[in-house]
Amino acid sequence: MSQGDHSAYAIIAKKRDSKKLSPDEIKWFISGLVRGDVADYQMSALLMAIYLNGFDKDETTALTDAMLYSGEVLHHGPKAIDKHSTGGVGDKASFILAPIAAACSVEVPMMAGRGLGHTGGTVDKIEAIKGYNVALGLKDFSRLLKEVGLVLIGQTGEIAPADKKIYALRDVTATVESIPLITASIMSKKLAEGASGIVMDIKTGNGAFMSTLPKARALAKSLAETGLRFDRSMMTVISDMSQPLGNAVGNSLEIIESIETLKCKGPKDLTDLSLELAGGMVHLAGLAKTPAAGVAKAKKALKDGSALEKFRQMVEAQGGDTKVIEDYSRLPVAKIKTEIPAHKAGYISKMDCKAVGMHNVLLGGGRRKSSDPIDFGVGFVFNKKIGDKIKKGDSIATIYHNENQASQVADIIKAFHEGDVSISSGAAKAPDLIREVKIYFPKKNTKKK
Amino acid sequence: MSQGDHSAYAIIAKKRDSKKLSPDEIKWFISGLVRGDVADYQMSALLMAIYLNGFDKDETTALTDAMLYSGEVLHHGPKAIDKHSTGGVGDKASFILAPIAAACSVEVPMMAGRGLGHTGGTVDKIEAIKGYNVALGLKDFSRLLKEVGLVLIGQTGEIAPADKKIYALRDVTATVESIPLITASIMSKKLAEGASGIVMDIKTGNGAFMSTLPKARALAKSLAETGLRFDRSMMTVISDMSQPLGNAVGNSLEIIESIETLKCKGPKDLTDLSLELAGGMVHLAGLAKTPAAGVAKAKKALKDGSALEKFRQMVEAQGGDTKVIEDYSRLPVAKIKTEIPAHKAGYISKMDCKAVGMHNVLLGGGRRKSSDPIDFGVGFVFNKKIGDKIKKGDSIATIYHNENQASQVADIIKAFHEGDVSISSGAAKAPDLIREVKIYFPKKNTKKK
Repeated sequence: MSQGDHSAYAIIAKKRDSKKLSPDEIKWFISGLVRGDVADYQMSALLMAIYLNGFDKDETTALTDAMLYSGEVLHHGPKAIDKHSTGGVGDKASFILAPIAAACSVEVPMMAGRGLGHTGGTVDKIEAIKGYNVALGLKDFSRLLKEVGLVLIGQTGEIAPADKKIYALRDVTATVESIPLITASIMSKKLAEGASGIVMDIKTGNGAFMSTLPKARALAKSLAETGLRFDRSMMTVISDMSQPLGNAVGNSLEIIESIETLKCKGPKDLTDLSLELAGGMVHLAGLAKTPAAGVAKAKKALKDGSALEKFRQMVEAQGGDTKVIEDYSRLPVAKIKTEIPAHKAGYISKMDCKAVGMHNVLLGGGRRKSSDPIDFGVGFVFNKKIGDKIKKGDSIATIYHNENQASQVADIIKAFHEGDVSISSGAAKAPDLIREVKIYFPKKNTKKK
Repeated sequence: MSQGDHSAYAIIAKKRDSKKLSPDEIKWFISGLVRGDVADYQMSALLMAIYLNGFDKDETTALTDAMLYSGEVLHHGPKAIDKHSTGGVGDKASFILAPIAAACSVEVPMMAGRGLGHTGGTVDKIEAIKGYNVALGLKDFSRLLKEVGLVLIGQTGEIAPADKKIYALRDVTATVESIPLITASIMSKKLAEGASGIVMDIKTGNGAFMSTLPKARALAKSLAETGLRFDRSMMTVISDMSQPLGNAVGNSLEIIESIETLKCKGPKDLTDLSLELAGGMVHLAGLAKTPAAGVAKAKKALKDGSALEKFRQMVEAQGGDTKVIEDYSRLPVAKIKTEIPAHKAGYISKMDCKAVGMHNVLLGGGRRKSSDPIDFGVGFVFNKKIGDKIKKGDSIATIYHNENQASQVADIIKAFHEGDVSISSGAAKAPDLIREVKIYFPKKNTKKK
């Protein structure tokens, strides 16, 4: 047994016995993992001990810190505000709120993920635009942020490499759904990306990872507290994910809906949430005294076309085909459309939002394993949402699919009829889109981390 | 994510959530580990979940079964009785009780381990005898059992290979001290070795892995219950390990003490425990109606020299130098002896038995890592034990060491004076050697596993 094993053993044993780990112990363990002195199987034993015995605020901060400094750490200015969503179905708000915020002089440095599980990935969606390069280096990332005001790239190995290793382990050892581990994973990346404030969109409902409101609240609190420890201003928004956000689910379809929204022709829920989040970013950047004033600025940027122009500039700066903005036929969209008819009359009362996400994955719109290719063209456009009245035979949603997918389409229609979408005879209420909003600023004169 | 990962994930998640695993799930996981479909880091996450959330009787039985059938499974006859000790300091009882039992017509198939941590290993000790071959194949193992009546080899990769892999992981992930995991590890090997009954010597006290009596009792119960599930007769003995067993600690020194004991000149505690355990083996083998009758037979075999003769036959059959029995100078014994004087007068009241074991390891008598060579010659012979009266300056123990070990010897003497051995002014009581004995026979007509 090497000295390294001895220490790893002692640290695992301490958390196993529900004792608090010191920042030094956590730092040693994480840097050992990155160096290769701590083995994967030791990390996974510690992850399970953390999952079961917990990590307090100090430990979560120390873990975030250790993961953050496992790679490059960027610093932009006070106007750099990032946004993160915990992931959902049809969540394309980043494509709308980032150009809006940038049009209001916020700098928006975005490093986004790919889809896995039932949720789509921002990076996958933007790649539906031909030529769009998400694989920029950190120099280009910082340069475009200053030049364009917003930049959207994929995760890079230079930022928080410890997170990549730890996430891969969590994903196969049933240690994903742990609030301290989720917090450290999100915050280590977000802090390393160099924003001075972060707007967190925490999804709740059956299409979200944190399905219940108490869990979403706990995660929001943990994220905000950790952000504050690192002197970041934070806004946490808990928003509904009991049905897809907007109407479109699927990569190209979501890009089209995003551009439509930037043209002020988008669905209300998507528009509202994007404005709320963008307004918060404007506020956190110090460019509006209140969130409401931020939202007012955001609305203006949406209406006057300056947000759409920022989107165009971003696509152009990253090598994408800007003509798609005026010509959606330049995006890959599946040729065949099949309607899903309502099996009875009434009101849409419930959706299995996660199931919808999985249908899109199985059509080829997402990945079952990380090496799978993506079919940008497939997906869904919902014609009815929760609370809407529907007649028997009316289309609930349109499936976009390929020629050879008839049996999958039949399965999807069957699943819609057998529980994915519930229709009640009495009126049903649409869910509240935004459940809770909280804003936090770090205390002045606090010691900088 | 492969199908294998999916199932491994689901099984880990189930135990993480404190749900009971089915025998099929446990079997799938263990065979997946052996095949390579389940990764080490998944096994270690499950091990931590088992450590923290437990395994009940059914799960422990299923784990034992899965590990047992990961390799070869032997079957001897009803007279084949094995013995296992949970490990301690100076525990050389196997070398005495096995020849005694064999002399009483018990067949004793022993596969023993090497030392690791502060405890010595039976296989390391017997290798102090020049030529003794512990690396016999399973065919020779079974043949010698029939021909000689006892056989002692090292663990082989053919028996319970899953245990080897799992133990290596537990050893570096702080998941060793778990009663279900200890039970499955011990029992899978013991059951595979083909005995029809097993005598378990569970050590308790500061030199034992199960340091407290309640922990030792819990392990004894778990071992017995698992043995019964596999239709084995079981004897569990909880015996003292708050000081070394006998007087000698160290490989050659313990072989000498064992032979002396077989010559009826051994220390009382070692002699008594060996007779108790051997008597139990005779009883489990059906060769004595009661344990007491078994002990009576054992005593006779010790007194009439037939046990010593069995020992000689075993050494001879496995290629060892039988002349050591009459000439201890044929064993490697360190040349220099240094006495550890008592720092004050009084009664030996306490020993740090684990520390004594570690001193022997550090002198070279044990391994710090599994690839370390062993120095058979070093060790300790205790001249006083707990309860003994001592004068200031009298020798507590004699250290056997090499020329270049003066500073280590000085450190050991200091440690003895500073707490390894306590001397009280009032009389101190020797610990009870045997704390509890239980005997279990499987019910007749039960379904064979």
